[in-house]
Formats: sequence, structure tokens, C-alpha cells
Amino acid sequence: MQGTAQTPPQPAAYTPTDRTVPTRSADRASYDRELVHSILDEAYVCHLGFVRDGAPVVLPTLYARVGERLYVHGSTGSRPLRAAGQADSGLPVCLTVTHVDGLVLARSAFHHSINYRSVVVHGVAHDVTDPEEKRQALDALVDHVVPGRAADSRPANRKELAATAVIRLDLDEVSAKLKSGGVNDEPEDLALPHWAGVVPVHTSYGTPIPDPGLAAGTELPDYLQGN
Amino acid sequence: MQGTAQTPPQPAAYTPTDRTVPTRSADRASYDRELVHSILDEAYVCHLGFVRDGAPVVLPTLYARVGERLYVHGSTGSRPLRAAGQADSGLPVCLTVTHVDGLVLARSAFHHSINYRSVVVHGVAHDVTDPEEKRQALDALVDHVVPGRAADSRPANRKELAATAVIRLDLDEVSAKLKSGGVNDEPEDLALPHWAGVVPVHTSYGTPIPDPGLAAGTELPDYLQGN
Repeated sequence: MQGTAQTPPQPAAYTPTDRTVPTRSADRASYDRELVHSILDEAYVCHLGFVRDGAPVVLPTLYARVGERLYVHGSTGSRPLRAAGQADSGLPVCLTVTHVDGLVLARSAFHHSINYRSVVVHGVAHDVTDPEEKRQALDALVDHVVPGRAADSRPANRKELAATAVIRLDLDEVSAKLKSGGVNDEPEDLALPHWAGVVPVHTSYGTPIPDPGLAAGTELPDYLQGN
Repeated sequence: MQGTAQTPPQPAAYTPTDRTVPTRSADRASYDRELVHSILDEAYVCHLGFVRDGAPVVLPTLYARVGERLYVHGSTGSRPLRAAGQADSGLPVCLTVTHVDGLVLARSAFHHSINYRSVVVHGVAHDVTDPEEKRQALDALVDHVVPGRAADSRPANRKELAATAVIRLDLDEVSAKLKSGGVNDEPEDLALPHWAGVVPVHTSYGTPIPDPGLAAGTELPDYLQGN
């Protein structure tokens, strides 16, 4: 549906800003929109930072992406969600997502590193008050963890919706940072007898463990097959 | 060596503070020292939050624990490490470590959740200026990722040490938060035909990929066997 009125074409990259241009390893930074989306879509837990009483707070939480917007949800009683809802101007946040892809073991301690892909989003989070946007965001949060799951579960009822706060964060001030590849030792270290190389790191899923009280005849759904 | 002058006995738990007592799900919080250590020791990437120009910043970075102290390192040019070194009073930070252990799929969208273990450390990070502490911290950072590796690599030289900044953060204001177990659906949802259960999540390591320029006869070390 590209090119329709509903989906205006987006620039291929986010515009760098002072705080999305790193002071070092600038060659590892990227503003490519598709790359940012792919990193965000592969994970479901982010680390959300905000300021409380002048000090930083970083909490792990689920998120989902819908187009150029991220959603985070939680109890209406949780501190950041309450803060976003109470402040007229929203809550300044930094939302970070990181994949670890490999351990890089160099011959020198100094050149040890991690292969990774991360996305850092700066912005202001706002409470989602529109009921339809909130419902879509909650579906997206479930589907972001297990695609296809939202349609195969009992939707939130009025009471549950009222107990859940959702905040949104637009993808505007965004950067990705990546490191991949092999060992980068100093030439004079290459003959050292230490093993060097990369240990790949993966996230894997075990065999699903059914709830003991499953209704009779309930089969493992297709979207969980292959785990 | 418990009970020696070098290792005074520690209370079994960290003392809760206003910011380490959650506003909700307080039953998931723990201040148990051994539990906090075990969560910290199982990971090596944390998300470090600090405040820059009044706004939160969250960056992924490696860390290591040595007793009741965490260390983070980076280029002397990186923003948080520079800030910790320049400020006489140190840099207020929040350091968070999260393990995802499982996806909990309930019959209701509302009761979907994640099984996880996390640790949140609040405190003030200080530049490590003592050369011996710095060297030990760098060894710990390498060994935290691959135990035994620091002794099997070329130690940092004077130039490399000078290019590396290390900051320390004492484990003082600390909490763990955990969720484990199975599905928690409403009684009236139990007969619904949706599959429910837990999908375990693991971090796994692939076969180590040797650097193409390994010195002849260099074998895969014992500490990487079994990957």
C-alpha cells in the first residue's frame, strides 16, 4: 500500500541531532530507517530511562512499534506511566534496545569487544488517551512478542483497559549503533599464542510448556510450532 | 575466606530505600544480596542511565562486579565516562541488568507477561584513578564475559590504559525484581479455547569462529569448549 494517502513516503533516514551523533565510533552509527525498524522489531524488551527527582531511572519494559511510533504499557499506578499522564508536556525519555550478537575475543585484552546492534530513541512520551489507539497499541504489544497472538486471545475488557496505561513515543530523534565482524588486533599481536575469534550469541526458545489447565483439545498453535 | 579482615561479613540484604521500593508488584522485589549478585554475574551487558542537559540517556555497555562494586569502562572520550571524571561529585547513574526467562501466554491478552529477573542499581559513579584498581577492573571486565580469559590475553599496555576510562559504582542502593512461574488467568477464562503456557527463553552460544590469522597450533581454549 506504499504511496497511498495513508502512508506518506518517509525519508530513508532519520535526521541526526546533537544527541544522536556519538562522540566516538561515529562510523558505527546509522540513521537508516529500515535498519532501525528491523532492530526494534526483532526485540520486545527495551530499557526505558527517565528522570525522577533529578536522578536517572532505567527500567526494563515491553514495547511495540507501529509505524513511526513506539508504545509502552504498564499499570496505571507505575511511576513513569503516571508521570507521563500527569505532565501536560509529557515525560522526556530515552528508550534503548540492544541485541548482543557475539563475543569478540582478541589476543589483547584491550581489543575484546561485543558485536551488537542497538537503537536509542530520544523523545517525549505521552499518555495515549484515544480508546482506539490504546486498543491497537495493546494488540501490537502482544503481537510484538508473539506475532499472531493478539487475535488468538481474549481481548482486554473495559476494566482491564482502565487499569492499563499506554504511552507513545514518536520515532523522530533516533539512531542505531552496530558493531559486527571479526577480531581487530594490533599487527604486533598477531603471532601471540592466544586463541582469537568470535563466539556467536543467540536468543533461543525452548519447548512451550502448556498450562496444566488447558481446555480439552487445545492444540499448540501454528505460531508456536518450531520452538 | 569469609570472616577475615579483608572481607567483613555483609548483611544478607540491601537496605530498601524510597527509590528501590516499587509502587506496584512489591512482592516481586527482592533485596537479597546473593540473589542480586547471581543476576549481575550471569549477564555482562547492562543499560546505564544518566542525565545530560536535563534529559535521560540510556546506553548499553559492559560491566563487571567485584565484590560490592560494579565497574564500567569505555573510551576516555565517551560522554558518561568523561562526565564522571570531570564532576568532583561523580555522575548520578542508574544501572539496570535484565534477563528474559520466558514468554507467558495467557488466555487473556491482559495477563500476557514476561518471566524475567532484573537488578536496578542507583548511585553515583566515580572515575577510577588508582592504577591498580583500574587494572583489576579491566581484568574483571574481560573475565566477566568469558571467565578465565583475562589471564589468556595480552594485558593492556600503558597507552591502552591511558585511553581507557573506568568508572565504579558501589552496590548500596540496589533491588532485584523477578517474575517466574506459569499463567495467571481469570477463573472465568480457563475454559477458553486459546492455548496458554510458557515459552522458555535462553541465551545460547554458537560454535566459536576462529580468527583466520591464528598463530599455528593455537587450540580452542578449555573455557570455550562446549559452546
